[in-house]
Amino acid sequence: MNFCSHCGEQVEHKIPQGDNRHRYVCTVCEHIHYQNPRIIAGCIAEYKNQILLCRRAIEPRYGLWTLPAGFMENQETTVEAAERETLEEANAKIADIRLFCSFSIPHISQVYMMYRGNLLNGFASPGEESLQTALYSEVEIPWDELAFPVITETLKLYFSDKQNGKFQIYNGEMRRDNNRTMNTLIYPDDF
Amino acid sequence: MNFCSHCGEQVEHKIPQGDNRHRYVCTVCEHIHYQNPRIIAGCIAEYKNQILLCRRAIEPRYGLWTLPAGFMENQETTVEAAERETLEEANAKIADIRLFCSFSIPHISQVYMMYRGNLLNGFASPGEESLQTALYSEVEIPWDELAFPVITETLKLYFSDKQNGKFQIYNGEMRRDNNRTMNTLIYPDDF
Repeated sequence: MNFCSHCGEQVEHKIPQGDNRHRYVCTVCEHIHYQNPRIIAGCIAEYKNQILLCRRAIEPRYGLWTLPAGFMENQETTVEAAERETLEEANAKIADIRLFCSFSIPHISQVYMMYRGNLLNGFASPGEESLQTALYSEVEIPWDELAFPVITETLKLYFSDKQNGKFQIYNGEMRRDNNRTMNTLIYPDDF
Repeated sequence: MNFCSHCGEQVEHKIPQGDNRHRYVCTVCEHIHYQNPRIIAGCIAEYKNQILLCRRAIEPRYGLWTLPAGFMENQETTVEAAERETLEEANAKIADIRLFCSFSIPHISQVYMMYRGNLLNGFASPGEESLQTALYSEVEIPWDELAFPVITETLKLYFSDKQNGKFQIYNGEMRRDNNRTMNTLIYPDDF
């Protein structure tokens, strides 16, 4: 950020009075431009023990597989965002949608909100951002060609719960360590 | 938004090619300025059957009572945001923190992520954004002086679960109808 989106003058990166974090502040109108994490909402859509995956037609991770998911828009609910992304990326509709997991990924300031549900009529086809859609059972999932660690983690939890016959709601975080390896922490869910 | 924060030239509000929503787009460098919902994270902190509330020293809703909560910052997890807000607004620390509910409020593009936990040592005192902190049992809660409908809803669910002896994780939405009344929808949690 170089310029104030309100008045067009230059911003500086400083800690505003009464604050404790650096913000972009206009040198003329003094408007403070806050920046906040973004939510990525998506779906695990199941049909006859198979899960809908999309092969990415866009960067990053072009050509790799992912669950339908994307940035939540203003004036949406998290469910609406998850359903819209599933429709946009896979022309697919979901029934019986339920929250499944929420992961914070602090180094990229993202919060994932992933839902689970039933893929309506088992139908999917590639949207503009997908090269291909496919329904995969657990053993068929291309585990080495998944686009993002959070997608791998989400699918592992899903199949584990499915095996146990009971779905939970997971909350956790994924952090990158000094070796650029992503480490997952799932918070305990009762006390 | 009037000016491009990258190059300082004017923006226009239009649907970019390949998109289906209005965005602020720079008339010169063509940068698209996306705007997304913000997360508000906070805590229900309990001590001996009492809940920590803060009386707001800032607008909106100056003088009304709320749970400690505020905008999640970049590079944070949702838990860290909830803990930081509780420390900033009430000088209070939380043990055994667990996700309790997440509500989308689409007309203001906010997503609440509220945690529950135990107030460490029962200690709290007003931070800069609070006039007063207090520990209230269910019957003592100033129900008619709560700052936001989502806080009322969260507290109702909390005390209801407490009565039932079992805490769930809730996901839902709050919408404002034509009479400006807020209506809450809690999504089903299993199928």
